[in-house]
Amino acid sequence: MPMKSDIAKRIVVIILGVPGIILLLWKGGIWFAALITLAMLLALREFYLISAKKGASPLLWVGWVVTLLVAWMYYGGVPSGNSLIFYNIFIVGFILTIELFRNKPNPTRNISITIFGIVYISLFLGSLIALRNWDDMTGFHLTWGVFISVWICDTTAYLAGKKWGKKKMMERVSPNKTVVGCVAGMFGAAITYVIMYTSGFLGNLFDWGDIIVFAVISGIFGQMGDFVQSLIKRDMEVKDSGKFLLGHGGVFDRFDSLFFAAPLTYIYLQLFVPY
Amino acid sequence: MPMKSDIAKRIVVIILGVPGIILLLWKGGIWFAALITLAMLLALREFYLISAKKGASPLLWVGWVVTLLVAWMYYGGVPSGNSLIFYNIFIVGFILTIELFRNKPNPTRNISITIFGIVYISLFLGSLIALRNWDDMTGFHLTWGVFISVWICDTTAYLAGKKWGKKKMMERVSPNKTVVGCVAGMFGAAITYVIMYTSGFLGNLFDWGDIIVFAVISGIFGQMGDFVQSLIKRDMEVKDSGKFLLGHGGVFDRFDSLFFAAPLTYIYLQLFVPY
Repeated sequence: MPMKSDIAKRIVVIILGVPGIILLLWKGGIWFAALITLAMLLALREFYLISAKKGASPLLWVGWVVTLLVAWMYYGGVPSGNSLIFYNIFIVGFILTIELFRNKPNPTRNISITIFGIVYISLFLGSLIALRNWDDMTGFHLTWGVFISVWICDTTAYLAGKKWGKKKMMERVSPNKTVVGCVAGMFGAAITYVIMYTSGFLGNLFDWGDIIVFAVISGIFGQMGDFVQSLIKRDMEVKDSGKFLLGHGGVFDRFDSLFFAAPLTYIYLQLFVPY
Repeated sequence: MPMKSDIAKRIVVIILGVPGIILLLWKGGIWFAALITLAMLLALREFYLISAKKGASPLLWVGWVVTLLVAWMYYGGVPSGNSLIFYNIFIVGFILTIELFRNKPNPTRNISITIFGIVYISLFLGSLIALRNWDDMTGFHLTWGVFISVWICDTTAYLAGKKWGKKKMMERVSPNKTVVGCVAGMFGAAITYVIMYTSGFLGNLFDWGDIIVFAVISGIFGQMGDFVQSLIKRDMEVKDSGKFLLGHGGVFDRFDSLFFAAPLTYIYLQLFVPY
């Protein structure tokens, strides 16, 4: 049970945070990119800090520099495949060289966790920057779509699971999630997209096939992202990844459903939607 | 000290292996690509097996499939930057999903080691395929250049270190390597490239500036690759990574100097040599 002061803090975060996010999402461009970059940097720090609980010492400053490069790439445009391979080799070679002179225990794990954090957090979350900056119509509204659908999905899953949920979905990983909750979450995401589509909020670029795909991405893959986050936190024996969002846990926690939903929505938009 | 039967085995490996490698290097194309792909698959397996000694359970079959894709990419041509990002997200997302249902201890470490093995071994070593297939003149002779220069570097480092070496280079990581040995290795690599260049073996595409860069790559970064391998093996508390090359250790061991030297030579050729 959260204590009274926790609830007060939660409300403060919501009152300041939600309009702030809406404003930056609306402005787009460098503003929204800055917001997401900040989230990436904080989430990476939280992940590295919790992984330290099990003996790893990842290279935070290298992770941060590479995160800025990844954010820049999603903002400014992806370079050629050859360039990406070269950057990859330089960055990994640099991490290996630093670790060689670092004299910390578990060097292989430090290197591996450093790289995994970058690939998972920065590369996955950063796709939000590219999604929003797709354009001021589809990019803007579809980013809204992802945010709202995963939020509705989470909320319906939580409420339905609490009221009717009995059978656990995957007790080993996430003991509070029930089958009923997960199914309700899927419906919540689907209904959200149906309403956004039929009301014209998403524009006229999409057909029903696209809407079904978006609903599946938020409703199923969004929840899968949740489970993966729970797996990692359970592995590290922590409940929350951090305290940045007073009472709401950390940034890594709060963005959990977006980790899978955001890049998949972006990839689908890029590959399959004609424009 | 190696035993007599070990020496016999070593000789067998040399008699069969060296002409075999020369033949496949000369044929190039799919033949050399197949040799390097085999080396990548074996080295990845060795790395995953030794990392299991410290409690990780990496996903070998996923690593192998991705290694085949990486080899194919170096052979057939690198796709666009956007495609690479998508593949990256799919592969990492796939690894995360598999680990979610796997119920093994230390999931974060399993995921991280799986990814690190792919990025380090497959992406680094695979560059040999692209280097050799650059063309039948420069690509062929420069691949020879890398192979021979790191081999001469290793050998002169070993002999000079044994005869005159006293002060250790980096005892914590590699207790047998001496400062004298490392410096001798650098000269060995440099002299090798000078001879190959002045004899005309490398063709007329390069100038002395290029030769200095290649010598630095093999003589300094080649040895750095050695140290990184020693760091990993020391971390895992093993002496050799495997026994595949009877008496010569594993593939991961034997290719150690090539891990840094090969991709750097390839990147330099691609970026700075006009053709």
